[in-house]
Amino acid sequence: MPKIVDHTARRQAIVEAYLALVAEKGIGATSSRSLAAQLGISNSLLWRYFSDMNQLLVQSYHTIIQNVDDRIMFAIAGRRGLDAIRRMVHELLPLDHVSRAEAKVVVSFWGLEVTKGTRLSQTTHELEAWSSVLETLLDQAADGGEISSSDRLALHDAAFTVMALTNSAQIEYATQDDDASAERTERIIDRMLSTL
Amino acid sequence: MPKIVDHTARRQAIVEAYLALVAEKGIGATSSRSLAAQLGISNSLLWRYFSDMNQLLVQSYHTIIQNVDDRIMFAIAGRRGLDAIRRMVHELLPLDHVSRAEAKVVVSFWGLEVTKGTRLSQTTHELEAWSSVLETLLDQAADGGEISSSDRLALHDAAFTVMALTNSAQIEYATQDDDASAERTERIIDRMLSTL
Repeated sequence: MPKIVDHTARRQAIVEAYLALVAEKGIGATSSRSLAAQLGISNSLLWRYFSDMNQLLVQSYHTIIQNVDDRIMFAIAGRRGLDAIRRMVHELLPLDHVSRAEAKVVVSFWGLEVTKGTRLSQTTHELEAWSSVLETLLDQAADGGEISSSDRLALHDAAFTVMALTNSAQIEYATQDDDASAERTERIIDRMLSTL
Repeated sequence: MPKIVDHTARRQAIVEAYLALVAEKGIGATSSRSLAAQLGISNSLLWRYFSDMNQLLVQSYHTIIQNVDDRIMFAIAGRRGLDAIRRMVHELLPLDHVSRAEAKVVVSFWGLEVTKGTRLSQTTHELEAWSSVLETLLDQAADGGEISSSDRLALHDAAFTVMALTNSAQIEYATQDDDASAERTERIIDRMLSTL
């Protein structure tokens, strides 16, 4: 059993090194060769943990979703309503070094999944969970008198729209390398929340 | 010179056949082999027109952007305000056989572009052009009294949000094969327009 644990831990270490390298060098410059060099291992040892770069990408995607989820839970802990929503949105947008590298890997993963024509991940669950969290926080904002709308449908639409805006910001940043795109999206979400 | 024209026309015919095959069989099942078979040509002849599947994907993306732009201009010709916006949104969403195949190819292209780490297309222009068209139509809607807001910033935000919702619907459909996602997005955009 220790061997299996070790294998899982090493796979995870490889994923973390991959994400760090993408943040540092860019996704296009992060080859299996440069990753192995970074880890101080041979290319062939790397392939004992992953069958190919695609499998590494899938695992990286899962790690990102988990990391973002952890960051969101930490950011909104003990907070309510609009304050919590703004902090959550901040974690979902590609606003810093880490989350920009994540956006690159996420969009790369989406493309791979679509190109292969098979579901490589079952992460719909997390994305829907985030949308539900947003709805709950919007409910709190309505209860607390922070927003005037308390119509269920309007709050559902608002949560859906915030998730769409963060998805689109990831594409915009990932495909165009425009550092300002996420900040623009954050301002637009902020203004949207103030009109609810 | 006729030879060059012929080469361009043949490349375009290959792209159209590729898009038709993606619509029919799915993107995962559309290999260069099946495309060559569909065209009644050999695999090696196919590679005289495209250096690889990635080049075909880039050309397909350009064709899609052009086709969508043509459909939008046709759909909104002679129309104004909210009527024109609704027709434009209808063309941007993966609501039918053709636009669903387009969503698959578009998301596949985004992933390729990000994975390669180089700009493969300069289509920011078209996406910004569509956002501008939306803003103009929102202005018309405000002038015509269809919407009460005439605040420039609010209309800009609304145009940006509509584009984000259509981008996100493409990802949602392409990665999850959920036929209902685009209809849901269309309803949400419709309700958003009615609250402006």
